[in-house]
Amino acid sequence: MTGIYLDNAASTPVDPRVVEAMRPFFTETFGNPSSLHRFGRQAREAIDQARATLASQIGAARPEELIFTSGGTESNNLALKGLAFAQRKKGRHLITSKVEHDCILNSTAWLEEQGFTVTYLDVDPDGLVRPADLAAAIRPDTILVSVMHANHEIGAVEPIRELGQICAERRVPFHTDACQSFGKLPIDVERDHLSLVTLNAHKVHGPKGVGALYVRSGAGLEAWQHGGGHEFGLRSSTENVPGIVGFGKAAEIAEIERPREMPRLLRLRDRIIDQALASLPGAYLNGPRRQRLPTNVNLGFHGREGEAISLLLRLDERGIAVATGSACSSHQGDQPSHVLLAIGRDPVEARGALRVTLGRFTTEEEVETFLRELREALATLRPINSLMAPEPISAGA
Amino acid sequence: MTGIYLDNAASTPVDPRVVEAMRPFFTETFGNPSSLHRFGRQAREAIDQARATLASQIGAARPEELIFTSGGTESNNLALKGLAFAQRKKGRHLITSKVEHDCILNSTAWLEEQGFTVTYLDVDPDGLVRPADLAAAIRPDTILVSVMHANHEIGAVEPIRELGQICAERRVPFHTDACQSFGKLPIDVERDHLSLVTLNAHKVHGPKGVGALYVRSGAGLEAWQHGGGHEFGLRSSTENVPGIVGFGKAAEIAEIERPREMPRLLRLRDRIIDQALASLPGAYLNGPRRQRLPTNVNLGFHGREGEAISLLLRLDERGIAVATGSACSSHQGDQPSHVLLAIGRDPVEARGALRVTLGRFTTEEEVETFLRELREALATLRPINSLMAPEPISAGA
Repeated sequence: MTGIYLDNAASTPVDPRVVEAMRPFFTETFGNPSSLHRFGRQAREAIDQARATLASQIGAARPEELIFTSGGTESNNLALKGLAFAQRKKGRHLITSKVEHDCILNSTAWLEEQGFTVTYLDVDPDGLVRPADLAAAIRPDTILVSVMHANHEIGAVEPIRELGQICAERRVPFHTDACQSFGKLPIDVERDHLSLVTLNAHKVHGPKGVGALYVRSGAGLEAWQHGGGHEFGLRSSTENVPGIVGFGKAAEIAEIERPREMPRLLRLRDRIIDQALASLPGAYLNGPRRQRLPTNVNLGFHGREGEAISLLLRLDERGIAVATGSACSSHQGDQPSHVLLAIGRDPVEARGALRVTLGRFTTEEEVETFLRELREALATLRPINSLMAPEPISAGA
Repeated sequence: MTGIYLDNAASTPVDPRVVEAMRPFFTETFGNPSSLHRFGRQAREAIDQARATLASQIGAARPEELIFTSGGTESNNLALKGLAFAQRKKGRHLITSKVEHDCILNSTAWLEEQGFTVTYLDVDPDGLVRPADLAAAIRPDTILVSVMHANHEIGAVEPIRELGQICAERRVPFHTDACQSFGKLPIDVERDHLSLVTLNAHKVHGPKGVGALYVRSGAGLEAWQHGGGHEFGLRSSTENVPGIVGFGKAAEIAEIERPREMPRLLRLRDRIIDQALASLPGAYLNGPRRQRLPTNVNLGFHGREGEAISLLLRLDERGIAVATGSACSSHQGDQPSHVLLAIGRDPVEARGALRVTLGRFTTEEEVETFLRELREALATLRPINSLMAPEPISAGA
């Protein structure tokens, strides 16, 4: 497809080098990795290699601590439910934050129905969890803390090292959802005191349908999906060999290119933020200015939040893809973003954000075109909306 | 890879036409189907089309009754656990058979730990469930019956229409795991009275990492993996768009070619069975002769069951891939096959089977080569084993 794709937090184009790495595993090395013959053994070797690549990137002590899943959602479900059910005799209290992805929050909601208790930590106006809040929330029956590494809507980078330190001192397993940060920010399970880490491929120019969960030896997790005992008994299912190979390649590329790529994207991100705040009427930034993913911009426009969808569609007509919130939340209809509500936005503001997220194939020229088109769209849309609603929609409505 | 691949029940090579159909969805139509912009909408259209193809092939009333998962194991887990947890106020009794795949049996074992009761139906010496046994096992608190369509080890085709009829009369939801039969045998959710059907792609020359679950409207299933509410709220996770497109294409090809392809494979299957029984010393067939998948052969050799692994490796040296049991069971070490035990084989026999499974790319020439190499391997191995164990290992050992 042609167009300017600025929705890389929703999904990314697969890097052609990743597709090339995957290709032989469809038609040539197509064996089931559990098979004993050479077709099987070669598939097994390929996934072992991807496992070693990913494990070493996050500082895992052993490759076997990294298990492959179908994606971030499954990894998060497995981390929370697999640990909660395994440890429920020890305690039934979990801690997470109010800005997590739906797959965390809907998993904890389900666990609450099963008799678990969950504390949802508040965040500061930038979207950041306060370590002192976590320290105060841990109870003797707390069996798991889960706080994301970087937020999917506002790009806030949580202080996971400090949070992990607190968990380590209190001997509570610490899980982080690193779907948005993996490949962009360094992750080190030792330094960050992580027991469980969720990773996925399709946010880092790898294929959809594959993710991973780091499970520290002795973390106390049990399988959530049962069957033939694949992935060291923690996740049964015939391994998605091409997907896993693609994930490994995507991670490898991201790691190699990160030192050069992240400063480039950071400059593009700041160009958008600076231009928007300086020249677009009423523009404000959701999320932190500093402790932020180099790829994330989240803008609101005072008094014009009701036009976010119109803005998105207008940009889409011009071939520019942005989002109003997280892609996944589109299934919940016109609900305000729980992330924006958590940082203190009102429901109108929390429906009216424009999320712009950058990726490997985003160019400076595309950013300039986007800024020009956004300015035009804002100017063009105003008269139409004014005709329909003579008073600008109040932020408090 | 070169070689003769006769392990298509473990996994199949992806059809090049399927790879071709998937290709654009990695690098061009890469959007997240939940996104509102055109990148997202085009991805959404592609999965809707695959959904319609698959739904219509099994006679589903509406495409929305077909939801995509990461594979057969997930579909089976979702069917059993999702239904059991949703219906547990109604009852806590499930019925399945002793010859199901591990992902059924380990899911029901887990449900037993959660307070459910499970009846495991016996099978006849061919591996077939007796409908009268099912009728006798249904209780007022039975909430689900799950019996596979075709067995993964011995190819037995279960009488799902009669079983479904009984479930319909007793108003108990009926689930079938059709992973091995889909694309080979017709499935009709109306005629067969099916409430839930598990399908997967990689057994039918589609990609690994994608499956589906048919969920009849009103079946009473709840989500098991929580998140953004994808797949009509029943299975959250960013959809594996290329995988789903590939699954749709694989199903389409299988459906078109089935009338010509299945008789061809049936002839090859019978050629192997007839030749083995006629000319290989001590050969016997596990599973039914008639009510059997056209792609499955499962052989034992009286008194030589202890050599199954040696046989497999010898054939592997000659570039021929077969299995000793199901691929997935390799994680359980040297356990005898629960399927073969259920049809009355003793533990030695149940460890000593050779499974030979055919696929689209299996040729007559390959079958002849296999038969010749198998005969040779049996002849060559005998002296070696005789040296080590002068008495042939008794079948009763």
